[in-house]
Amino acid sequence: MTSPIKGYDYGASSLAQSPLELRDLQLLKQTLLWSEVDEQALKLAGEVLENQTDDVLDLWYGYVGSNTHLLRYFAHNEVPNPDYLAAVRKRFGLWIMDLCNRPYDQDWLDYQYEIALRHHSTKKNLTDGVQAEPMIHFRYIVAFIFPITYTIKGFLAKKGHSIDQVEVMYSAWFKAVTLTALLWCQPYVNTGEF
Amino acid sequence: MTSPIKGYDYGASSLAQSPLELRDLQLLKQTLLWSEVDEQALKLAGEVLENQTDDVLDLWYGYVGSNTHLLRYFAHNEVPNPDYLAAVRKRFGLWIMDLCNRPYDQDWLDYQYEIALRHHSTKKNLTDGVQAEPMIHFRYIVAFIFPITYTIKGFLAKKGHSIDQVEVMYSAWFKAVTLTALLWCQPYVNTGEF
Ligand code: HEM
Ligand code: HEM
Repeated sequence: MTSPIKGYDYGASSLAQSPLELRDLQLLKQTLLWSEVDEQALKLAGEVLENQTDDVLDLWYGYVGSNTHLLRYFAHNEVPNPDYLAAVRKRFGLWIMDLCNRPYDQDWLDYQYEIALRHHSTKKNLTDGVQAEPMIHFRYIVAFIFPITYTIKGFLAKKGHSIDQVEVMYSAWFKAVTLTALLWCQPYVNTGEF
Repeated sequence: MTSPIKGYDYGASSLAQSPLELRDLQLLKQTLLWSEVDEQALKLAGEVLENQTDDVLDLWYGYVGSNTHLLRYFAHNEVPNPDYLAAVRKRFGLWIMDLCNRPYDQDWLDYQYEIALRHHSTKKNLTDGVQAEPMIHFRYIVAFIFPITYTIKGFLAKKGHSIDQVEVMYSAWFKAVTLTALLWCQPYVNTGEF
């Protein structure tokens, strides 16, 4: 598969299959109180965020950049790698759109697993061929659910939707971020305990 | 330590020490954009929730009870154990108050670790001396961040506080739930990766 963004391998046949099946995904969605309303709200969020992804990423990168304990994961011997940051940023922008627009099917599950491996020592740094911290520590993957959720609300409110519509988009986003973050934990978890 | 609620061992000297130190906690709070405002908002949330914990627990238990894939963790051979459910419920009520009112110090960290072990196979079922599923699967611990956060908002709004005050309490609660849930993941994570 060729792709204009380096390392963005969504749907590629080379990807490993996620250890989770659609049946597992279904139960997770049920746990997250997922409904039709969320599907529609994410579609709408996708429209609202489409031309704002750069602003969102400026905010998120500002946050990572101002926290040395986070920036270190993009660094080697404490020197951040700007090429690495830039390469990941492009894929991060696509992730925002994918979270809103893609059907959550086996291809989606498989790419979540690939992203999981890219945060974990299994595949970190390989996609961009860089030398950097060998793994992102687990604790911050789950912790990020808060900032990645909370900071989106302002952007969801920027296109003139009602307070209620913004709230519905916001909680669908919260569910979707929680779901992806937990899927990304998979490689970190003891065998049989996920 | 004697305690009126069976198995509630907050501060007990018999508890194992958390593998995390206050320095780790500090960095996690920073990642969660934690501030003085959150401390105050949690105190206020504690006042607001104090005489509503039974209603909150009715809602949460209703949710678990109507999802067989969750209720099974309170069950043996698919038969839920009402004594087990009732015993845990009492400690769950105290957790709501502790989350709002306790200082997040080493004692707090140590009890989070104890609760982690009680969800994990290490100590599940021991506190109440029951036969039930040997472990809660990891995926649902993180997934619960959504329902445990989202459903609290209605209760925070019930005591006549302004919309802004409710929002501030709600995001402090979101941070606190994310923090505890990630601490509870500790026993599930591969050595050295937490
Ligand atoms: C909810 C939590 C997180 C989200 C939504 C997120 C999002 C993303 C996305 C979309 C990518 C690109 C995936 C791809 O290759 O297509 C990525 C990669 C990356 N993220 Fe995260 N991330 C999260 C947690 C973290 C944390 C806590 C850190 C630590 C600072 C971090 C640092 C990185 C790094 C260094 C890469 C590049 C990995 C590689 O070498 O391929 N991420 N992240
Ligand atoms: C954010 C996620 C969660 C929160 C806030 C939470 C809260 C609690 C609390 C406060 C306790 C009592 C702790 C004590 O002994 O003092 C507890 C125990 C328990 N929880 Fe959770 N819980 C979470 C996830 C789950 C999940 C996903 C399940 C699955 C249905 C579950 C089922 C249980 C069970 C069975 C116990 C009793 C464990 C034992 O045998 O001691 N919990 N939980």
